[in-house]
Amino acid sequence: MTDSFRPIIWKNNRLHLLDQRLLPNEEVFIEVMDLNGCIQAIKEMVVRGAPCIGFTAIYGMALWVSSQDKISFESCRIACDHMISARPTAVNLSYEVNKCFELMKNFIEDGKDKSALFDALVEFGDSQIKYSQQKNFRMAEIGVQELTQRIGNRKWNLMTHCNTGFLACGSIGTALGVISHAHSLGHVAHVYADETRPYLQGSRLTAFELSKEKIPYSIVVEGAASYLMSSGKVDAIFVGADRIAANGDTANKIGTSTLAIVARHYKIPFYVVAPINSFDTTIADGSHIEIEMRPMNEITELKGISLAPNGAETLNPSFDVTDHKMITGIICEKGFIDPSIKGDLLRIVNS
Amino acid sequence: MTDSFRPIIWKNNRLHLLDQRLLPNEEVFIEVMDLNGCIQAIKEMVVRGAPCIGFTAIYGMALWVSSQDKISFESCRIACDHMISARPTAVNLSYEVNKCFELMKNFIEDGKDKSALFDALVEFGDSQIKYSQQKNFRMAEIGVQELTQRIGNRKWNLMTHCNTGFLACGSIGTALGVISHAHSLGHVAHVYADETRPYLQGSRLTAFELSKEKIPYSIVVEGAASYLMSSGKVDAIFVGADRIAANGDTANKIGTSTLAIVARHYKIPFYVVAPINSFDTTIADGSHIEIEMRPMNEITELKGISLAPNGAETLNPSFDVTDHKMITGIICEKGFIDPSIKGDLLRIVNS
Repeated sequence: MTDSFRPIIWKNNRLHLLDQRLLPNEEVFIEVMDLNGCIQAIKEMVVRGAPCIGFTAIYGMALWVSSQDKISFESCRIACDHMISARPTAVNLSYEVNKCFELMKNFIEDGKDKSALFDALVEFGDSQIKYSQQKNFRMAEIGVQELTQRIGNRKWNLMTHCNTGFLACGSIGTALGVISHAHSLGHVAHVYADETRPYLQGSRLTAFELSKEKIPYSIVVEGAASYLMSSGKVDAIFVGADRIAANGDTANKIGTSTLAIVARHYKIPFYVVAPINSFDTTIADGSHIEIEMRPMNEITELKGISLAPNGAETLNPSFDVTDHKMITGIICEKGFIDPSIKGDLLRIVNS
Repeated sequence: MTDSFRPIIWKNNRLHLLDQRLLPNEEVFIEVMDLNGCIQAIKEMVVRGAPCIGFTAIYGMALWVSSQDKISFESCRIACDHMISARPTAVNLSYEVNKCFELMKNFIEDGKDKSALFDALVEFGDSQIKYSQQKNFRMAEIGVQELTQRIGNRKWNLMTHCNTGFLACGSIGTALGVISHAHSLGHVAHVYADETRPYLQGSRLTAFELSKEKIPYSIVVEGAASYLMSSGKVDAIFVGADRIAANGDTANKIGTSTLAIVARHYKIPFYVVAPINSFDTTIADGSHIEIEMRPMNEITELKGISLAPNGAETLNPSFDVTDHKMITGIICEKGFIDPSIKGDLLRIVNS
C-alpha cells in the first residue's frame, strides 16, 4: 500500500479523509476541521470500516480539545457522547472514544494543560493505528505461513469476498491483508474479487485497493464461484468477519456462507481472517446471531436507476452465518484456529 | 398469464412485439411491418429467448410473402437466409425459417397462390406457439406432480434463477412454467428470484413476469442462497437449461451450478426444466461444453454508470455446467429423468 492511499491522514495537526463515497473513480481527500465535521464524515460514510471510524473519532476528539478555550469533565463527556452518537451501534467507536474520555479525565485530574492533552490524544490515535497495523500484519504472516505449508511455494490464485483492505482498516487489512502480504512476497498469481451484491464492495472498494497495490485481479459475479473453483482457478479463499461465535460459526457479509459451501464441495481451503475483537465467545454458536435486513432498494435500484419492476419486493439480509464446518481455519493475531477441533478457538482466544 | 402480456401478438395480419429492452418499467408494444423490421427486432433484442425469436421469424416470413408481387425459389431462399442472419448462432431460428422455406417450396411447386402461402405460414406460426405451449404445460404438470409427491399438498416456497417464463418462451415457460402452473393450482406460498448478475434477468424479467401473474415473490442476490436455504425458506428450486449432456450435466446461466451445490448441501431438491431440443446426447458429459466469455463491461458498468475502477478487469463466464449429481430431476415434455440412474436420460429422450 502506498502511503498516499491511506484513507486517514493526520499531518501537521490536520485531519484529511479519503472521501470513500466517490470511489472507485474519484480519489478526493477532504479536510475535517472539527468534531461536527468528524461526526458528519462518519454518518455520511466518507470514512467507513470499524477500525477507520475509530481512528477518525480519536483524531476528532483531539480537534475538539484544540478548539476549546477550557475543558471540564462535563464538556468532555458531552463531546464524547456526541461523537459516539455518529454510529451508536459501532462497538469499536464507543470503545475508542471512551478511551479518549479516560485520557481527558486523567489530564483534568492531574491539572495538565490542554496542549498536552491534545498531544496525548494524537499520540493515542497514532498508536491505535500502529497497533492495528501490527495485528493485521501478524494475521497476514500467519495466513501466508498456512498457505505455504498447505499449497507450497508456487504462485497462488486467491479469492475474496466483500471489502477487508486498507479502506476499512487503515492498514493492510484482514483477509485482503493476507493477500497483500502474499503479493509483497511474490506469492500471488491472481486474485478473484466477488463484486459482492447488493452494495458492490468488491467492485467498488476491493478492486480499487487491488489496483492501487498493483495485484493482478478480476472482478467476478458471486454466481461464478462454482465455475471458478471447478475449473481450477482458485487455490484458497480469504474472507473477513463481523462476529465469530465460540464454536467458530462466523457472521460475515451476505454471500460468505454460499461461497464457503461451494469451496467445501470442491475441497478448496476457506479462511476467515479477523482480529480478536470480532470474537464473541459469549454465544455458543451462530444460531444466536440475528440477521439484519437492509432496505429493499439496495437490490432494486442503483444510483437512482430502477433495476426491477415498480413495487418489486426483495429480501435483503445484510449478512449470513457460515457454519464452522465449512471453515478450514480462522486466523487472528494470536494464532491459527482449526474450527474442526472442539475448543481450539477458546484456547487461542484465551491464550 | 394474461393474454395481453404475451410478448408476441399476431392479430388481424399484423405483428406486435413487446419491446423487452424497456422492461421492467415500460410496457410498450411495437408493430413490426416487414422482414427487415423483424430482423432488426431480433438483432436489437426487442424480442428475446430462442422460442420467441423463432415464432417472430415465422410471422416475419409471412409478412415478407405478403409484401412481394411474385415469389420464386431464389427470392424465398434469399429472404430466409436474410432472416437467419439476424442471429446466426440460434439453432432454433434457422430450424423454424428452414421449415418456412419448405412450405414456400411446396407452394411454388404446387403452383398455389401467394395468399394461400401467407395463410399457411401464419398457421405454421400459430401451431408452433401452440405446440410449444403444450410442451411447456406438460413439463409444468410433471413438475407439480413431482413436488406433490415429494413435499405434499401444502403451499410451497420455490426458488428460481435467470429468466425462463413467458417473455422468452411465449407461453408459460420452462422452470417458471412449473411455478406458474403450481400457482394456478394454489400451491405457491412464495417465490425467491435470484437477481442473476451480471445481466439481471431475474430482477428485470422474472420479477416482471411474477408480478404480472400476481405470484408473491422476492428478488434476492445470488449470495443469499445459503441464508435462504439454511433458514428453511426454500422447499425446491427450478431452473432452465441451455444444453444438457447425455449424463445429465447441464449448462445454464452462470450461477446455476453454485446454487445447485448449495441446494445439495441443504438437501433441497433441485430441478432442471427443459424441452427435448435442449438435450445434446452427442456429448457424454459437461466437460465437452465450452464456456463462452462475455464482455467485461457487463460487470463493471450499468446503463453507462461505472461500478468499478477505470481499467478494472473482470472474468465474465456466461454460463456454467451443473454436475448431474447435484440435480434431483430433469423434467422434459417426455417425462421425468433421474440423473442418478445411469441411462435414464437416454431412455426418456429416445422414448
